[in-house]
Amino acid sequence: MDANVQKRLGLKELESKIVTAEEAAALISNGDVVGMSGFTRAGDAKVVPMALVERAKNEEFKIDVYTGASLGPEVDKYLAEAGAIRKRGPFQGDAGIRNLINSGDVLYVDAHLSHNAELVRQGIIGPIKYLILEAVAITEDGFIIPTNSVGNSPIFAEYAENIIIELNISHPEALIGIHDIYVPGEQGNREAIPMTDAMQRLGDIGIKVDPAKIKAIVISEEPDAPSLIVPPDEETQTMANILLDFFRDEIKAGRLTKQLMPLQSGVGSVANAVLDGFADSEFEDLVVASEVLQDAVFNLIDAGKVKFAAATSITLTEELQKKVYGNLEKYADKICLRPQEISNHPELIRRLGLISINTALELDIYGNVNSTHVSGTRMMNGIGGSGDFARNARLGIFVTKSYAKGGAISSIVPMVSHVDHTEHDVDVIVTEQGIADLRGLAPKERVPLIIENCAHPDYKEQLWDYYNRAVEATGNHQTPHILEEALSWHVNLAKNKTMKKEVAKA
Amino acid sequence: MDANVQKRLGLKELESKIVTAEEAAALISNGDVVGMSGFTRAGDAKVVPMALVERAKNEEFKIDVYTGASLGPEVDKYLAEAGAIRKRGPFQGDAGIRNLINSGDVLYVDAHLSHNAELVRQGIIGPIKYLILEAVAITEDGFIIPTNSVGNSPIFAEYAENIIIELNISHPEALIGIHDIYVPGEQGNREAIPMTDAMQRLGDIGIKVDPAKIKAIVISEEPDAPSLIVPPDEETQTMANILLDFFRDEIKAGRLTKQLMPLQSGVGSVANAVLDGFADSEFEDLVVASEVLQDAVFNLIDAGKVKFAAATSITLTEELQKKVYGNLEKYADKICLRPQEISNHPELIRRLGLISINTALELDIYGNVNSTHVSGTRMMNGIGGSGDFARNARLGIFVTKSYAKGGAISSIVPMVSHVDHTEHDVDVIVTEQGIADLRGLAPKERVPLIIENCAHPDYKEQLWDYYNRAVEATGNHQTPHILEEALSWHVNLAKNKTMKKEVAKA
Repeated sequence: MDANVQKRLGLKELESKIVTAEEAAALISNGDVVGMSGFTRAGDAKVVPMALVERAKNEEFKIDVYTGASLGPEVDKYLAEAGAIRKRGPFQGDAGIRNLINSGDVLYVDAHLSHNAELVRQGIIGPIKYLILEAVAITEDGFIIPTNSVGNSPIFAEYAENIIIELNISHPEALIGIHDIYVPGEQGNREAIPMTDAMQRLGDIGIKVDPAKIKAIVISEEPDAPSLIVPPDEETQTMANILLDFFRDEIKAGRLTKQLMPLQSGVGSVANAVLDGFADSEFEDLVVASEVLQDAVFNLIDAGKVKFAAATSITLTEELQKKVYGNLEKYADKICLRPQEISNHPELIRRLGLISINTALELDIYGNVNSTHVSGTRMMNGIGGSGDFARNARLGIFVTKSYAKGGAISSIVPMVSHVDHTEHDVDVIVTEQGIADLRGLAPKERVPLIIENCAHPDYKEQLWDYYNRAVEATGNHQTPHILEEALSWHVNLAKNKTMKKEVAKA
Repeated sequence: MDANVQKRLGLKELESKIVTAEEAAALISNGDVVGMSGFTRAGDAKVVPMALVERAKNEEFKIDVYTGASLGPEVDKYLAEAGAIRKRGPFQGDAGIRNLINSGDVLYVDAHLSHNAELVRQGIIGPIKYLILEAVAITEDGFIIPTNSVGNSPIFAEYAENIIIELNISHPEALIGIHDIYVPGEQGNREAIPMTDAMQRLGDIGIKVDPAKIKAIVISEEPDAPSLIVPPDEETQTMANILLDFFRDEIKAGRLTKQLMPLQSGVGSVANAVLDGFADSEFEDLVVASEVLQDAVFNLIDAGKVKFAAATSITLTEELQKKVYGNLEKYADKICLRPQEISNHPELIRRLGLISINTALELDIYGNVNSTHVSGTRMMNGIGGSGDFARNARLGIFVTKSYAKGGAISSIVPMVSHVDHTEHDVDVIVTEQGIADLRGLAPKERVPLIIENCAHPDYKEQLWDYYNRAVEATGNHQTPHILEEALSWHVNLAKNKTMKKEVAKA
C-alpha cells in the first residue's frame, strides 16, 4: 500500500476495505436513497460518482441524492445527465441538473439547509442506504476526517446503513483538527447547543462511526471543482462601500461596535465582493460565522481584518486554492468547519446576533424577496441557507444589482414572482444605487426607500406609477396591489424581452 | 386606601403614586412611542387607554403603540377610531383598527411575535417613553405581577423610560406564581436559554423594575374583553379527526409517541376546535407549549388529557373565564405564562420539537400560505407567531376550511396573493376535505395531494386545469405557473364575486 494512503488510514482494520471506484459503485442499488458529502462544490466525493455515471450508461439506475449543498459536475452534471438522479435535495447550482429540474426530469426538494438534519432524524429523508463521504483521513481512534466541507455528513453518517469513504490524498493533512463536529440529539431530548461565542469549539475533530458500517474505501486524488465566482466589479464595489457606510452609521447610532457582529455572507460573486470591501476599511477583529468561506475571507485574514472564520465549507477559486491549501498551517487556528446544522442553526444565529448578507434574485416594492425562481417558475439554485440566516439574524441584509440583462430586467418589481423571504424577514436592501433600511417600517413606508434608493433610474417612474395606481385602486390598503398587473412586468419580459413599459405598449 | 388595593401593593413606597386614569393619561405626550401590555385581548390596560381616548377628542394627540399582540376594543377600536394611533405593531385583530389600517390612516408593522424584543434591544422600536402595564399585584420585593398575559411587557419594562401600572383588582390573586419571567441578554452576550423541557420554569414570578420608573398607578376593575371564538362545528370537528388520525399514523410509523410532542395551536376558532378534538381521544399526558391558551386547553386539563400548558396569554370566552378564574388554584401547578420572546423563540421551538397548528387564510397548489392579506392587499390580523412556529416546529401544520363565503372563495388557489409562509415551511395541510403531508416532497409532488385531498370538490377540476396548462406552458419547470393567470382567481372574485370560472366566462 502507498505510504501516503497508509498514514491517512489510522484504523488498520479498514485496509481490507480498499476497493476500486467501480467496486464501490457496484454496492449501490437502483432506487437507493444516497447521502453524499459536499457543500458548494467543496468536499464532495468524485470518483465513486463517476463510476456510478458509467453504471447508469449500461443499466436502469436511478437514485435519490441528498447532500450538504451544491456539488461539482461529477454528480450535478454528469450523474444527473446520465438520468441517474430521481430526486435531489437540498441545493444545487449546476446548469446540468438545473435544466433537468426545469424539464421535470429530476425532482428537486429545495429546502432550508439547517432543516435537513431534523428530517433525517424524523425519518422523512431516508432510509439512507449509503453515504458516500470524501475524507482526508481516518484516524487511529476511528474519526473520519472530512475534507474541506462538513455539510450534512455527520447526520448522514449516523443514520446511513452503509458508508463508502472516498479517501482523497490530494487534500493536505493539515485539514486534521480544523473540523468541529457537534451533532444535537433527538428533538425533545436535546441540550441547548453550548455555544455563546462564534469562536468556540464544541465537538470532535471528525465523525465517529461504527467501523462495521464502512463497506468500502476508495482512494482518490481528484481535486475539487474550483469556485466559479467572478472578481468584484465597479458595481459590487459600490455596494460594498454603501454597506460599509451603513455599518459606520450603525456604530455612530450605538447599535454596533467596530468589531460589528459575526458576519455571514452568502454564496456567490456579489456576496464575496461585498465582503472583499472590508479589506481597505477601518474595521478589525472581525469574526465570520457563515456557511461558506470564499476567497474574500482568506484575503481578509491575510489583511489582519478577520481574526476567526467558521463555516461548513471552504470554496475557493483555483488561485486561492493554491494559496490556502499550500499554507493551511497558517490558517489552522483561525478557521473552523462545522456541520451545516450548526453553522445555520436558528438558535445560534439569533443568540450570536449575526449580520447576514445574502443575494436576492429580485425583490418587490414592499420588501419581499425571491431568491430561487426566475420569473416565478424556473429554479435557479435554491434557497440554501438564506432563510436560516435572514429570519434569525440581528441584521438580515439582501444585496442585488438593481438590473439584469443590460437593463431589460429590473431587480425591483411590483410583486415578486416567487417569495422565499417575506416582508417580515428583510431588514436592509442594498443595490449599486443605494440602501433601504426597512427595519421597523410598515409596507407603505418601505416603498419610497426601495424605489428611490435602490431601483434603477430607468424603472423608478414605472414603479411609482404602479404603486400610486395601486393605492388609488385599493383605497390605500395595507399592501396596495393591482392583481391584474402585479406580475405584468414578468409577462412583459417573456413577451417583449424587457420589463420596460414603453415596449410593452408598442 | 381600599384593603384590596393595599394587599395588592406590597411595595409601600408606591402608594403615593396612585392617581386617576386621567392623571396618568396626562403624562403621555403627543408623538410618544408607548408600549402596552396585552396579548390577544388578555392582560391589556383598559382604563388609561380610555382616558387617552378622551384626550384625543380634545387635542392633537397621536402615539405609536407596540404591544404583545392584539388588544381589546379600548385601544384597537376606540383609541384607533379617535385618530390617536399613528403606528401600531406587532399584531391586531379588531375591525376598528383594521379598517383604519386598510384606509391608510394607521401604519401597521406586522411582525413575527418573537422578533419585537430584539428590535427593542437594538433600538429599532423606541425609545419607549411609557409602558402601560396591567398588573394584578406588585409584591413586597418589587415584582410587578402581570395579569393573564405577559407578552412583551418584560422587555418594554426594561427599556421604557417610564411605567404606568394599571392595577386590576378584579383579577384573582391566585395569578401570582403562574408567570415565569426570563429575559435573554444582549445578542452576542447571552447564554443559551436553559430550557430542555416545556414544563420547566426558568425565571421570576414577576417583572423586576427600578421603582423610580413607575410614575403612576391606576386602580382598575375592568374585566378583559372576552375571547370571540365560536364553538366547534361539524367541519372543524372533521378537521380535528383527520389530524388525530394523522398523529395515529405517525405513531405507527414510529415518528411520534402517544404523548406526541409539545403542542402549539394558533389563535382562533378553527385552531381551538382542532385542539378540542383531543378530548375524546386516547392521547394523554399531553403538554401544550403555545402562544395562547384558549378554552380548549382548560377543557383538556379538566379531561385529564393535558398535564401542563405554557403560553404567553390566557384568552377565554365569558363562560370559561368564570370557570377558570373562579378556580384558578386548581390549574395553578399546570399552567405557566412566559414572555412571548420565550414562548415563540426559535431556539426552544426547534429544541423541544413542537407540533404547531396554525390557521391559513389561503394556500396554493405548491404549499405556500397566506395568513394575513385578503386578496393580497387588505390586512386581516397579522402573521402573529405563526412564522415563529411553522418555520421551527418539528411538524408545521396549517388548517383551513377548503372554502369561504358559501363556496364563492376557494381557500386553495393557483398562487397565493400574499406569502407569509413559503413552500419551505409548510409540512402538512388539513382542510375538512382531507390532509396533504408535504414533508420531503418537491413542488410538483405536492400538487396532487393538495388538490385531491384538500381542495373543495367544486374547485378541483379548475385547479387541475390551471396546473396542467402551466406544466405545458413552462415545459414543466420546477414550479409551473402561467403568470398572466396566476392571480386571476382573485381578480375574478373581485369582479364577479366568485372564484368559479364558469361565472368568469359568462
